[in-house]
Amino acid sequence: MRLISHYGRLLAVALVLNGMMHASVLAQQDTKAQAVKKSKVVFQVSDGDSKKWDLTLNNVKNVIKDIGKDNIDVEIVAYGPGIDMFKFESPAASRIEEVLKLGAQVMICENTMRAQKISKADMLDNLGYVEAGVSQLIKRQQQGYAYIRP
Amino acid sequence: MRLISHYGRLLAVALVLNGMMHASVLAQQDTKAQAVKKSKVVFQVSDGDSKKWDLTLNNVKNVIKDIGKDNIDVEIVAYGPGIDMFKFESPAASRIEEVLKLGAQVMICENTMRAQKISKADMLDNLGYVEAGVSQLIKRQQQGYAYIRP
Amino acid sequence: MRLISHYGRLLAVALVLNGMMHASVLAQQDTKAQAVKKSKVVFQVSDGDSKKWDLTLNNVKNVIKDIGKDNIDVEIVAYGPGIDMFKFESPAASRIEEVLKLGAQVMICENTMRAQKISKADMLDNLGYVEAGVSQLIKRQQQGYAYIRP
Repeated sequence: MRLISHYGRLLAVALVLNGMMHASVLAQQDTKAQAVKKSKVVFQVSDGDSKKWDLTLNNVKNVIKDIGKDNIDVEIVAYGPGIDMFKFESPAASRIEEVLKLGAQVMICENTMRAQKISKADMLDNLGYVEAGVSQLIKRQQQGYAYIRP
Repeated sequence: MRLISHYGRLLAVALVLNGMMHASVLAQQDTKAQAVKKSKVVFQVSDGDSKKWDLTLNNVKNVIKDIGKDNIDVEIVAYGPGIDMFKFESPAASRIEEVLKLGAQVMICENTMRAQKISKADMLDNLGYVEAGVSQLIKRQQQGYAYIRP
Repeated sequence: MRLISHYGRLLAVALVLNGMMHASVLAQQDTKAQAVKKSKVVFQVSDGDSKKWDLTLNNVKNVIKDIGKDNIDVEIVAYGPGIDMFKFESPAASRIEEVLKLGAQVMICENTMRAQKISKADMLDNLGYVEAGVSQLIKRQQQGYAYIRP
């Protein structure tokens, strides 16, 4: 009798320990599943070509409409000749305001700004800034963002 | 004697339970390994430039030849000015038929078609269609497809 | 007394076995954490446009400066019209030597070389070669490299 109860207790210990392991593995899978649920995408703007800027803004609007504002994080990273898109006098200014209102983020490369000798005062409002646009694109991909280069 | 046999039985239980955990971890690794075995790649065509179309078709053919028809899933997603590549009168029509026969899939953006007021009757045969080309590119990357923008 | 010591021994066995499982899971996580620590990026050069080449070289230099030579693996894959960047007479030759010294690797597409009927003697020194540039870009992305197409 005592032996059986003893056996039972030990089995219980083994089961609990294994249960803890299993729960920890399941928790990891849950986190992955949730990470997949919200889509993330980073758009690269590196051309000084206003047709490309329009295409990019169309892309951003379509993807937010298609996947849903709350189901996707959208970031636009501009560097090199692409930062002209976000300068104060940009022909795309009003359409940029529109996508910012839809929740898109914009990140401007400060290396490019230094090379062009321009400051934040020369840029549109409500933009973000990063040291190097390319490093931001790498970081985002490592965080699971899809990459689109229009 | 009985204690030893009892000890043995408990040890067996612990070993079996741990073995099951281990097997489950190994099974996950196997699935990953298999997922890695078959390559997957999505090509973006968003330029209205016939030289780019030729380069893309060369890329697709080379990659299928190099990796092997059965070892890779290839999808071409066309949107914006890129959908001209797949219109009925496209100069690339015969070469497109060739890569379709090699197993490549093509997905056309219906948002772009609506904007250009064209229908499937204006397009080549054997193409697939998606609501938003960019959403498809995001989805494929999230599914582990490599992304190539020729 | 004997039963308690027996109980203790069995518990110890269960704990050790579970500890081994746990250690193995933690070891996997460590490997992942270390894999994340070192950034990896592959740049695609497929345009015959010397402005793009300069932008790419700026990108490579900025990213090495920003993330640190020892914290990032940088590879440039050239194919199609992009291989002109690495020909012997390239206007970018001295700047390419500079990024090679910073630790960047260059891979040239041999399919493109055959199509252009050129040999390694026509190319700059210290380059690597792959059968198909696009296959290399796919392979690198599957190995966790971020992809940048300047």
